[in-house]
Order: sequence, then structure tokens, then C-alpha cells
Amino acid sequence: MWIYGLMCELLGMNANVPTDIRFSFAALAKRGGETGPHKDGWGISFYENKGCRSFHDPKPSAQSELAALVKNYPIKSRMVIAHVRKANRGRVALENTHPFTRELWGRAWTFAHNGQLKGVKDLPLSFFRPIGTTDSEHAFCFVMDYLVKTFPDCPPPKVLDREISDLFAQLRGLGVFNALLTDGRSLYASCSKKLCYIKRQAPFGTATLIDEDVRVDFAAETTPDDKVIVIATQPLTHDEAWTVVTPDSTLILRGGEVI
Amino acid sequence: MWIYGLMCELLGMNANVPTDIRFSFAALAKRGGETGPHKDGWGISFYENKGCRSFHDPKPSAQSELAALVKNYPIKSRMVIAHVRKANRGRVALENTHPFTRELWGRAWTFAHNGQLKGVKDLPLSFFRPIGTTDSEHAFCFVMDYLVKTFPDCPPPKVLDREISDLFAQLRGLGVFNALLTDGRSLYASCSKKLCYIKRQAPFGTATLIDEDVRVDFAAETTPDDKVIVIATQPLTHDEAWTVVTPDSTLILRGGEVI
Repeated sequence: MWIYGLMCELLGMNANVPTDIRFSFAALAKRGGETGPHKDGWGISFYENKGCRSFHDPKPSAQSELAALVKNYPIKSRMVIAHVRKANRGRVALENTHPFTRELWGRAWTFAHNGQLKGVKDLPLSFFRPIGTTDSEHAFCFVMDYLVKTFPDCPPPKVLDREISDLFAQLRGLGVFNALLTDGRSLYASCSKKLCYIKRQAPFGTATLIDEDVRVDFAAETTPDDKVIVIATQPLTHDEAWTVVTPDSTLILRGGEVI
Repeated sequence: MWIYGLMCELLGMNANVPTDIRFSFAALAKRGGETGPHKDGWGISFYENKGCRSFHDPKPSAQSELAALVKNYPIKSRMVIAHVRKANRGRVALENTHPFTRELWGRAWTFAHNGQLKGVKDLPLSFFRPIGTTDSEHAFCFVMDYLVKTFPDCPPPKVLDREISDLFAQLRGLGVFNALLTDGRSLYASCSKKLCYIKRQAPFGTATLIDEDVRVDFAAETTPDDKVIVIATQPLTHDEAWTVVTPDSTLILRGGEVI
């Protein structure tokens, strides 16, 4: 039985130290065609300092050899975005598989989205253009295009925070825009109506996944200074207190903290 | 004993039908720290229609779990670029690991390079900027930047062929520029002094890798209409007649043919 909704599911992680995402990704990957209906591809992007690597597969994550590799490969990262897809706009194909990445101001920007945006393809684009046919990638290009036209170089964090919040509010006006955007330093999370997060810090406890019979003792894997925030469409564990993000708002994470 | 030179090694494939690259990649991966000294990371990019996926690892390919996965994962593609790295400029890091990718005109462009380019970082960039610190990525951004400033939209193939050939000639003037660039349709190969290719078509024969005791009977894996060109820094098989690319020239491949 699928206990989740019919949308895509998002997962983001931001930490102040390189952190292993495998525990959370295991749950998300299960929802890609096993405990959830998100069988139309999946992707995950990890930052390692300025470098960013992504794994994409148009196959269901629950049956993907690549997903199996990612689940077993101890990549440690301060910033991760992942997505499992239930196609509504744009055929099932590699080029329509989130997260999408573009370079802006000498940094890799990565984006994943769930929801539908009415008329988003009428928004004109000049520089950044979609490779695939999803609404989501068009929305991403719209944000990147606006930023590069407004700021030839990267503005200070607070200016950028405000600008991206405004752009996200504009996109939420077109429909459902639950989305994660990052340049590897800040994680911008747009919540139309469904997004929640958990902040893990000392004293660390244990947690048990909802989708799989897996339990982790974070105290054994962390130091007292570690701060990790995991953000997801729906809670991934059933014994932690997840905070629901205020509908129609943007949440900004940096260094494992809510800004 | 390392029987190869101290440069990075390049591998490209262009075919008229989706083709399995594993045979050739197995040889290249061995040169990443085992039969060759290219231990400072490796990467491979596959096109599947307009979609492009890349695997990057700053670890030596000969010891990389990811490389082991790619060697066993039957991705079929018409266009592939791969690279094993011997760092000379830019530290060993994910962001310095080839191939590099950028979106231009709604297509993913991918680039890998071996050689050193004197003063390439003095070439001004406006729109496309390097994420890492290699000469190679700067040269790639220079090409992309010139193209977007010269052509707001993708020009006809012949115009683009000429323009990229001119840009490559300019870069060869700065040093050693053996490089592969593709938008998934055309493969542009710059040869300063070391590049060769093999064209495989009916009647297909067999071939044996130099770096590993592996032999393939292409006749069993192809149809009579298949055309596949593999291009590499040095021959990958010892029982086929590889063609040496003319030094100081650009070779263009499309649909499994030399243009």
C-alpha cells in the first residue's frame, strides 16, 4: 500500500560538517516505487566544497542499481538535494530528471521541485534555458536568469536571500512550488504547502526510518558540535519531532542552522 | 610498469545508434592508477538523447567503486566523453575533475582536456565562469562565452563547426590542447599532438584491449548499419588499425562519421 501522496518527494540536507546522507536517502529511495509511487526517476546531488556531483536515473529508485550504489557509498557532504519523481509534466527521460544544475557566478546551483506551475513556460528566458521539458526546469532557469541579469557578480548573502525569497513567492503564485535550491552554501526551500524539517544536534539521540526497518544512533556518528538539518516533503522518521514549514514561505538554511 | 605518458588521457565515442562504452572504458579506467599514472580522478559523461549524466570521482579510477559500477552498468549512448586525470594545474578535488558541463542554447555541453595552456586564465570571461581552478575549465568557459556572445541562438552545424575549429586553433596557440567537446550531437576533438581514433562498422571484427585481457566480438553486439567511432589519447586495442589525428587540427564527428 502506498501511504504517500501523488506528488514528487524532495529531500535536502544542510550540515556544518560533512555528513553521511545514506540513512535519509534510504527512505527516499524506497518511496521511489516501493513504499511510494514516485517511480519515474530519481536524482541526488552532493556538494563537496565547490564541487558538486549528481546521480540521475530515469528508472524507479527502488529498483535502480545506481540508487543501490548511492545507498552504500559513504559520500560525506555538507549539502545534499535529492528528488524522486512522479511525472506529471514532461515525459520520463534523463533530461527531465531532477535535480537540475547550472553554473552561476562560478558556483554550481542545483534545484529540485515538486508541484505544478500554471503558465510558467510563458515566463521569458534569455540566458539560462531548459534542456528538458518540465515546468520545474523552466522555473529554475527563470530564477537563474533573473539573478544573472540583476547581479553580474554574487551579491552579499542577505541580498541574495531576499531576492530568492521574492522569486520563490512569485513562483508560488503560479501554483504549487515546493522546491529546494542551493549553491552549496545556502539551501533555499520554498514551501507551498508540504515541507518539514528536523534539526539534529547534541545531545544526539536515535531515530528509526518510517519506510524501512532501520535505526540509527546519531550519537555514535557525530561530534558534539555537529549541526544537521534534514528537510523533506514528509517526515522520514517516526520517533523524532519534525517541524512543519509554514505554508507559502521560504526557509533558508546555512551551516546547519535556520537563517 | 607504466607504459604511458604523463598526460591525462581522453576517451570519446560517437555512434549512430546507442552503443555500450564499457569495453573501452575498462581500458581507460585501468590507466587511472594501474597501467597508467592518471591517479588524480576520473570522469565520464554519457548522453541519452538531450539528457546527459556524468560520473566524477577524485579517486583513482583503478580503485574507484564508482568506476567499477560504470564498468558493469550497461548504459548505452550515442555520445560519451571520459577522462582520467594526472593533476598538473589545480589541486585534486571534485570541482577540478573532468568532464566539465555547461548548458548553452538549451543543450548540455561537455568538455575534457589534456595539456597545459600558458596564460589561458588571462582570457576574459563574462558569462561562463570556472567552478574549479584548472586551466581546462577556464578554456571551456572561454569557448562557451565566445559562442553565447556571438550567437544568441544555436547557429547551423557548419557555422558552429567552423567557429569551434577557430576557437580550438586559438587555444592550441597557447600550449597543448588535446580536448573533446560535445553538445550530444557533434563531437569536436582538438589534437595538438596526441589523439587517435578507430572507426568500427560492418563487417565487424574482434578487438583485444591493451590494458586488460579482454576481447570483444563486435559482430555479436551490433547490426550491419551501426557506425561507431572511438577516439582516445592512445590506442586502446592492439589488433585494430587506429588512425592518428593530424597534429594541430580539429576533427569533427557526427552520427558515427568523420565530418
